[in-house]
Amino acid sequence: MSKSKVTGNSYDFSELFDFLSIPSISAQSVHKKDMDKAVKWLSSKFSKLGFKTKILPTRGHPVLFAQNLVAGKNKPTVLIYGHYDVQAPDPLKLWKTDPFKAVIKNGNIYARGAADDKGQFYTWIAALEKLYINDKKYPVNIKLLVEGEEEVGSENFISCLKKHKKILAGDICLVSDTHCLSENQPMIDYGLRGIAYEEIKVTTLKKDVHSGTYGGNVLNPLMVLTQIIGKLKDQNHNILIPKFYEKVRKLSLSERKELKKIPFGEAQIKKETGAKIVDGEKGFTVHERAGARPTLEINGIFGGYTGEGPKTVIPSDASAKISMRLVPNQTASEIHKKFLRFIKEITPKGVKIEVTLLSTSEPSLMKIDSKYFKSAEKAYKKVFGKIPLYELSGGSIGAVADIKKVLKIDSITMGYGLPDDGLHSPNEKLSIKMLEKGIKTNIEFLTNI
Amino acid sequence: MSKSKVTGNSYDFSELFDFLSIPSISAQSVHKKDMDKAVKWLSSKFSKLGFKTKILPTRGHPVLFAQNLVAGKNKPTVLIYGHYDVQAPDPLKLWKTDPFKAVIKNGNIYARGAADDKGQFYTWIAALEKLYINDKKYPVNIKLLVEGEEEVGSENFISCLKKHKKILAGDICLVSDTHCLSENQPMIDYGLRGIAYEEIKVTTLKKDVHSGTYGGNVLNPLMVLTQIIGKLKDQNHNILIPKFYEKVRKLSLSERKELKKIPFGEAQIKKETGAKIVDGEKGFTVHERAGARPTLEINGIFGGYTGEGPKTVIPSDASAKISMRLVPNQTASEIHKKFLRFIKEITPKGVKIEVTLLSTSEPSLMKIDSKYFKSAEKAYKKVFGKIPLYELSGGSIGAVADIKKVLKIDSITMGYGLPDDGLHSPNEKLSIKMLEKGIKTNIEFLTNI
Repeated sequence: MSKSKVTGNSYDFSELFDFLSIPSISAQSVHKKDMDKAVKWLSSKFSKLGFKTKILPTRGHPVLFAQNLVAGKNKPTVLIYGHYDVQAPDPLKLWKTDPFKAVIKNGNIYARGAADDKGQFYTWIAALEKLYINDKKYPVNIKLLVEGEEEVGSENFISCLKKHKKILAGDICLVSDTHCLSENQPMIDYGLRGIAYEEIKVTTLKKDVHSGTYGGNVLNPLMVLTQIIGKLKDQNHNILIPKFYEKVRKLSLSERKELKKIPFGEAQIKKETGAKIVDGEKGFTVHERAGARPTLEINGIFGGYTGEGPKTVIPSDASAKISMRLVPNQTASEIHKKFLRFIKEITPKGVKIEVTLLSTSEPSLMKIDSKYFKSAEKAYKKVFGKIPLYELSGGSIGAVADIKKVLKIDSITMGYGLPDDGLHSPNEKLSIKMLEKGIKTNIEFLTNI
Repeated sequence: MSKSKVTGNSYDFSELFDFLSIPSISAQSVHKKDMDKAVKWLSSKFSKLGFKTKILPTRGHPVLFAQNLVAGKNKPTVLIYGHYDVQAPDPLKLWKTDPFKAVIKNGNIYARGAADDKGQFYTWIAALEKLYINDKKYPVNIKLLVEGEEEVGSENFISCLKKHKKILAGDICLVSDTHCLSENQPMIDYGLRGIAYEEIKVTTLKKDVHSGTYGGNVLNPLMVLTQIIGKLKDQNHNILIPKFYEKVRKLSLSERKELKKIPFGEAQIKKETGAKIVDGEKGFTVHERAGARPTLEINGIFGGYTGEGPKTVIPSDASAKISMRLVPNQTASEIHKKFLRFIKEITPKGVKIEVTLLSTSEPSLMKIDSKYFKSAEKAYKKVFGKIPLYELSGGSIGAVADIKKVLKIDSITMGYGLPDDGLHSPNEKLSIKMLEKGIKTNIEFLTNI
């Protein structure tokens, strides 16, 4: 393992390249050893930087914990969250270079995990290294928490937090796992949506039957499923589950005005997705729909014959995957109950319906008037020349909600990616310029809280 | 190859077992040689029975033609249709015995093709053999037409008929590829439905996108697809395609009364399919809905993530397979045009829609007051003790419609299967009692036209 040199304004990223070369794919059991290797890599690194480290086992992949409390009780304690696991690189054939052999091209580092999240988390490692080399101590108390199951739903993270609640206590959490609007415009997600991800299965027959013989007399589960789905939203994109919107936080006029500053508009969506039409819930802007309003989307439908050509079958059952993004003050369990009740209500007689809650995470909303957000703003201003815009993210980071719930602290999403980094896609990259700005911003933040 | 012995009332089916042992699976190109083997088996057999044989090549698998016109011009000419191809035996693990090594168990022959159609067609081979052994000639002129693509849609059959129209001319066609109601109650399908089998594909995006980022702003093709499907039928099971029912033949009161004799009712459907509810178009009996009315069924839907667990994706496209069963006097091309026009009409703006007609066959209706049907009735009466019931079949036999269209003759569906033979399923069987009754009925029919 080569040692990274952090001197002045120049960086040697060979150590990051080592970290990126570990195929720590949390979803695939064949990579169990690589998961352990990644944890040990982190543990070894933090030990060298003056941290006490501890590997916290979970039912799944372990969480790496490290702390340095030398700054003392009069100083704040910051918790830095990251994840060492990555998505599988499939489809491999679309990668232009080896996903686990990082390369630099046109000012970017290309590798699986370059942006999500090894590269972004590395902005903290490099920042700490620079501070430690100079002073052999840190300006604040620092706790690091690096999980290995972010890409598979952080299922065991909350119980780990609960179990180790005492040693994890801190004043603010920092998360670099999002992106800036552009190289010059930093952005903080002050709200993240939650999610209730359901699978419904409709069964009307005991076996697949011939559509010529029985068609027109028996309930076709594919037809029943589409009719159920058709009742979930109206033509104006309103979700029809009773009391679905009941707890949704209302935006103030000033908040709506602030949000309008984020340039996430129709043209951008059309360009990024190829959509011919951008449309959604009436009375809300594109950005509000994506971050401040809950949504319901069908993520998959399957049933019957799906191969080539015709087959005259009525299947016994049909299924759909349906996810709802939640905003404060909705909760996953409340929405799951309402969804379940409504689905049962609209399921016709003679149909067996099964509803399975596949995964959940809670929505979160940060109080951005705290001194920590002000420190972040100042750090950004110094390095980027601009204070960050605040957006409500459409996505979900389960760990942020878990940390808020268990440790009662907000997270500042100091993301250093760019919108086109290609997370979860082939040829994922991170801009070296952004990496360097991230390291500098983190140093500024830690030294000026 | 062992020679079957047909003496008195006892049969040696070893020759049928040879025929059943050939895995002539038309859908799988790996079985090309087996297809040829099956054709040669037939050709050799018919040569020994005094027929001139000819293998008619098509774009796909060949058609076997054989004729014996010794009876002379004053006698009628019967065309006997069958097919030598079989469905794939998948899923193999559900078979209790080798699908291509026939066994006799509890009075049944178990093998792929036992009922559909090798075993049933064999009733004609054995009948002809008996007649030939006794008289060295036949009481009528006989033409045999055995195709190899029935299980894959008989795509090349009609052009073969057209090409050889002259030599194929006859007075009536006989088809043993359906079933009796029970061992003691024969049944003739005097009507077969046609089909227009469509695939529709809805595209709203240029690539799969993140449902957290874009959900609520872009059109989800899965939602659009379900909305389109939801507009195809109303709550009362009426098909909403404009003018869809326009040409549908109306049943007379007497025909409806006759059809009521067929014991195809709610209880039977519930038992066979496990359906809790039997429901369909108002104002029609269960049997009328299955045979005399057109239907529209969804045979498959696919799009988005269909693997285990959650994935937060909005797919770029989604597809459905939709088949419509047609009755006289609808035509596949007329219904396809109406379907296409309606689908385009109900597709929302901003959505790309593609409609592909995967397969068609025309509906057919036989004139059962001809002397040939009377002869069939008498033959059944003699062997089964009962004349056949006449039903309108819910299924389609493309060849019957093709023969009617090109050769202008009706087919008598003298089926000798039973409802529980398990066509296209594992452990397909044919009752030996039915096989023997079939041979006798065929002999009666041929000798008493």
